[in-house]
Amino acid sequence: MTKATVTAPEGGSTIGIERIFDVAKSKLFKAMSDPKLIEEWWTGPGYNITVEEFTPEEGGKWRYVQRSDDGQEFVFYGVVHEFGPDRVVQTFEFSGLPERGHVILEKMELTELEGNKTKLHVTQAFFSNDERDGMLASGMEDGMNQTYAKLEEVAKNL
Amino acid sequence: MTKATVTAPEGGSTIGIERIFDVAKSKLFKAMSDPKLIEEWWTGPGYNITVEEFTPEEGGKWRYVQRSDDGQEFVFYGVVHEFGPDRVVQTFEFSGLPERGHVILEKMELTELEGNKTKLHVTQAFFSNDERDGMLASGMEDGMNQTYAKLEEVAKNL
Repeated sequence: MTKATVTAPEGGSTIGIERIFDVAKSKLFKAMSDPKLIEEWWTGPGYNITVEEFTPEEGGKWRYVQRSDDGQEFVFYGVVHEFGPDRVVQTFEFSGLPERGHVILEKMELTELEGNKTKLHVTQAFFSNDERDGMLASGMEDGMNQTYAKLEEVAKNL
Repeated sequence: MTKATVTAPEGGSTIGIERIFDVAKSKLFKAMSDPKLIEEWWTGPGYNITVEEFTPEEGGKWRYVQRSDDGQEFVFYGVVHEFGPDRVVQTFEFSGLPERGHVILEKMELTELEGNKTKLHVTQAFFSNDERDGMLASGMEDGMNQTYAKLEEVAKNL
């Protein structure tokens, strides 16, 4: 499985993620913009998600509910600052934390490469080094690589 | 003039700002929530701002146009992730930068103190150390202290 490159500056509060997708940018962007397609690829072992709300435009909101086979339910949600085929900027919060306020700002940049490939570069900004390191310690990397593999597959089939 | 305490971890990408306001929390929050009042205090030498849009709720947008006496015009804008009397979380972008995408996530926390005072703690998260240091080098601190003094005055008069 293709793995994304994850960088996290020592003592800092950002994460950089980069992955080359073997699919044209227009297809990758479509897979990232269509609620039905998001439900197909935002998945992993033992859970699935429902896109309850998703407005891909400035001021839009997004709200994905994740249900696990063991009955657990979590919500991922945020608002959209910018939404375009070259760059998406949005906030991100997770209902599973002890309290609200641990919000992340996420920027996704798409660049078309030769040979029908696309580079996705994600930058995440956290409010503190602790919050950033908490995300890294959550095992997000394994889940992310599986999710990106599924995203690539869904985009290729468009 | 009361000065805010500004902290910026070495090599990091966040800024922390803290200031005690000599006014009750309900008044301070009102001054931060009312477009007409925002126009009164978000000002400085040689410029004023117009609140063109401001929806204080999740998914809301805000857009302030700053016009200087010398004819320059800049826009500050973003979207609202959370808006309440204890905590406001919103994005922030400035039209004066060479390109879009340098977005900041800002969290403002209000805490009532004894003696009709209120602590405002602001946390700003940037996408990189360079962007964070660019903000610090912009002279934001002087302008901020003047703006906070004016905010305190406007809130006290409510």
